[in-house]
Amino acid sequence: MTPDSLSTTFAALADPTRRAILARLSSGEATVTELAEPFDLSLPAISKHLKVLQRAGLIAQGRKAQWRPCRLEAGPLKDVTEWLEHYRRFWDESFDRLDDYLREIQREEQHDHDE
Amino acid sequence: MTPDSLSTTFAALADPTRRAILARLSSGEATVTELAEPFDLSLPAISKHLKVLQRAGLIAQGRKAQWRPCRLEAGPLKDVTEWLEHYRRFWDESFDRLDDYLREIQREEQHDHDE
Repeated sequence: MTPDSLSTTFAALADPTRRAILARLSSGEATVTELAEPFDLSLPAISKHLKVLQRAGLIAQGRKAQWRPCRLEAGPLKDVTEWLEHYRRFWDESFDRLDDYLREIQREEQHDHDE
Repeated sequence: MTPDSLSTTFAALADPTRRAILARLSSGEATVTELAEPFDLSLPAISKHLKVLQRAGLIAQGRKAQWRPCRLEAGPLKDVTEWLEHYRRFWDESFDRLDDYLREIQREEQHDHDE
């Protein structure tokens, strides 16, 4: 069974180094060597991470033989955002409830003060 | 090294059954038995998934001895949304580029038509 694409995306994002690679690529294309530098990782280690990101469609690599820059591909991140939309009301609701609660406390304090 | 909380959240979401459990809980609390029903999974199998979700802080389970309903906890999903915000401009930009491209094609077609 091949995992569905949302699962592949989430699995690829479940690693701080891979998220840092995406953050780096969000400011522009970079070669594998450039990507490896800040992480103090060997080229094989970074290549493994890149392969996971590539398989998830989160990055693409140029085809020029010598200089194969990686770039961010945001499509799967958009799919994640769409999946999350369904849950947005939950934190908006909790915020509303907190707001009600704080208002309630304020009213009570005002009441105590008035007595 | 304990994984950071974003990695734990993403790993928990990287499974279609666990995402289906969250979808079910988004329409209200449910017991473990109720959650197991639609998935044709054994109770131990569903419990394993619930443990992963619970460790990620995505669900909480009531403490009443007999009936321990699970409920959705949306905090970690909000953190994911905040992490994604940084990347939003990428798909908005691609959309802009697509828009420019379609306009360009339209102009060319109009041009061909006029000749």
